[in-house]
Amino acid sequence: MSKRGGADDKALALAKGKRIRGAEDVLRKVQALATQLKNSKEVEKTLTELNLPYNCREVVDKDGNDVMAEIEAAMYSVASTILEGEGFTFDVPSRAKGNQMYVPELDRIVLRDAVSKRPFASTATCRKAAVTTRILGLVHELLGKNIHVTKRDLFYTDVKLFEDQSQSDSILDDLACMLGCTRSSLNVVASEKGVVVGRLSFREDGDFIDCQRMGVGGKAIPPNIDKVTDISSDASFILLVEKDAAFMRLAEDRFYNTYPCIILTAKGQPDVATRLFLKKLKSTLKIPVLALVDSDPYGLKILSVYMKGSMNMSYDSSNLTTPDIKWLGVRPSDLDRFDIPQQCRLPMTEEDIKTGKRLLEEDWIKSNPEWVRELELMLSSKVKAEIQALSSFGFQYLSQVYLPLKLQEGDWI
Amino acid sequence: MSKRGGADDKALALAKGKRIRGAEDVLRKVQALATQLKNSKEVEKTLTELNLPYNCREVVDKDGNDVMAEIEAAMYSVASTILEGEGFTFDVPSRAKGNQMYVPELDRIVLRDAVSKRPFASTATCRKAAVTTRILGLVHELLGKNIHVTKRDLFYTDVKLFEDQSQSDSILDDLACMLGCTRSSLNVVASEKGVVVGRLSFREDGDFIDCQRMGVGGKAIPPNIDKVTDISSDASFILLVEKDAAFMRLAEDRFYNTYPCIILTAKGQPDVATRLFLKKLKSTLKIPVLALVDSDPYGLKILSVYMKGSMNMSYDSSNLTTPDIKWLGVRPSDLDRFDIPQQCRLPMTEEDIKTGKRLLEEDWIKSNPEWVRELELMLSSKVKAEIQALSSFGFQYLSQVYLPLKLQEGDWI
Repeated sequence: MSKRGGADDKALALAKGKRIRGAEDVLRKVQALATQLKNSKEVEKTLTELNLPYNCREVVDKDGNDVMAEIEAAMYSVASTILEGEGFTFDVPSRAKGNQMYVPELDRIVLRDAVSKRPFASTATCRKAAVTTRILGLVHELLGKNIHVTKRDLFYTDVKLFEDQSQSDSILDDLACMLGCTRSSLNVVASEKGVVVGRLSFREDGDFIDCQRMGVGGKAIPPNIDKVTDISSDASFILLVEKDAAFMRLAEDRFYNTYPCIILTAKGQPDVATRLFLKKLKSTLKIPVLALVDSDPYGLKILSVYMKGSMNMSYDSSNLTTPDIKWLGVRPSDLDRFDIPQQCRLPMTEEDIKTGKRLLEEDWIKSNPEWVRELELMLSSKVKAEIQALSSFGFQYLSQVYLPLKLQEGDWI
Repeated sequence: MSKRGGADDKALALAKGKRIRGAEDVLRKVQALATQLKNSKEVEKTLTELNLPYNCREVVDKDGNDVMAEIEAAMYSVASTILEGEGFTFDVPSRAKGNQMYVPELDRIVLRDAVSKRPFASTATCRKAAVTTRILGLVHELLGKNIHVTKRDLFYTDVKLFEDQSQSDSILDDLACMLGCTRSSLNVVASEKGVVVGRLSFREDGDFIDCQRMGVGGKAIPPNIDKVTDISSDASFILLVEKDAAFMRLAEDRFYNTYPCIILTAKGQPDVATRLFLKKLKSTLKIPVLALVDSDPYGLKILSVYMKGSMNMSYDSSNLTTPDIKWLGVRPSDLDRFDIPQQCRLPMTEEDIKTGKRLLEEDWIKSNPEWVRELELMLSSKVKAEIQALSSFGFQYLSQVYLPLKLQEGDWI
């Protein structure tokens, strides 16, 4: 690949007569967007600023010592109610569906403030109170030693009590709400799945990581986000890629050398570690996030997890979600615009169409007319396409023509 | 964690009265094994040396230019038979099950030498001949540009002709056999899944990678093994871990600082890239590979893929398999030896028992009486256990007690 975004003749011929200019020109629009983001007075709204007519509960990342102090305070308060003869009980925020809601101003799902009692002296909650106490103790130990474990590890420390992993998992989430901190602040982490490459450097547990020198395989995104510090980058944007294959193509072509960017993928359904990492990059660097996903309802579902979060972890949506992601491609309208051959377009299944229709009814889609238009086009044409469909024009069409053209034209929505 | 393998008091008390000595002592047995491996006059046997009464076909890693030359030669030969009036036909090695066999001397599955004709002028093979020609051309292009793509990318370059990805995939394997080279030599790679950390450095596409400075997340194992060069290490052994959670524990505890080793995992079922990487490490460094898998039939299945390879890619078993892997743990006999609590032992399912019985009949298991004994113990006790069951003694029991004790006692089979 030539250094300044030049594509080979065949690829150029396929750019539909449009000339891909030098990298500086190509980058002009995305840099304008970045500047706009950086200068934006509009800081991300917080729950407290909104003055909603009801209270919501949100958790924040907390330092290990602070969480330990919270745990100790919780236990002191339990001890004093016992001493006062009022029994042993925890106040646990409700994470039930009825206590969750989508807040349009924040553009994400949050948890309302209903709280339920979890008394030890009740047959209904006695076990839960015991498990809560045990997990409080285990988490306190983890924080004291400053080590991280998975939910599975936690479960195995007391199988006799927990019985089933879903029980310890669920109480772990209760605990995060109760202590007002993220699950990662409890030092219980998800396993890692994502990789990152490009114009980014950071420290991970003290080690200096330069993602520009990570070969073609990239750097595995760490499971414990709190060990990531000193993030630094000269990238103009973050390219969020749905799949491994496209990531590999861009990494091997060192796309980020010509067009300064950070490329990351969770290899399909996004895991918590990748979502936390993306959010941290976005809020630290304040550069645009452009998404490259398959042109099908599943691609949009994936975007929705990055942008809106999942119901189950709504209490932590502020750390897990990156609301302002631009849909770069592959969009349903690209199929005709880029003359994707008919053979590379796949018929949508019944299930696809059902999912697509359900998406059309969601608030966050409805709030963006351009997204609605694309989704309607997909549903009316009943065809979908993978990112790899672009390979029909040559293996490097993605990195040498499609993406540069998209950037040059500022073609994101 | 203290720097010289010392465990905390609770963990020590759980070492069943056995004292974990200093790291030098702990490492003595594995280092002896490493020395034995390095001094071994017994070089890995090759097919040609065996003088088998029948011919077998094996592929080797080839340089891009060599593969291009092979492709050109194949096309010249086709051109000359056409000019001689003998028509257009390819000689394609058969990859059918009947042409595969397990060779005990090599301890892996290989392909015999049956070849079938693939003439263009036959309704039965006309399409296949066309697809073969097209893929030869595409691979030639990949090699000329020195870029790598996935099987999916390859499929999308000519969906009209290939119709279905299984068709292009299958002919790609044919081609590797035909040209006598590995599939990676064709620059078509699998997507990556594995991660590595520890006392290892190498160059990847020119970038210097130090796996000792990869934080806790580790380095993603690259999809294209031919870009990995200059492998260097002062490790005494390679620790092959089945799962992510155990990998994370060892990476965070920087287990490799105390006990010089390379830790890698494919996060479950091993992918081609991880298998190639392990084989390359083993044959370059000549150090022992110790495996840490779940104590269940699935754990053994995973070991079998690393050690024996899969039927489908038997033509490339010499590059994909690492025959001499020691089973360190978690072994069925460990459950009692280490007093794993009853609650952490899970009953085997019907399916587990069936798989276990099938394994007992396989040649590679039968050839190792100690493995047979362990498997028989598992099947008679009808219980299985995950690596994480060790967490019941404390989160760092794995890194501070279990593994050091195992190493100290040379307890692998």
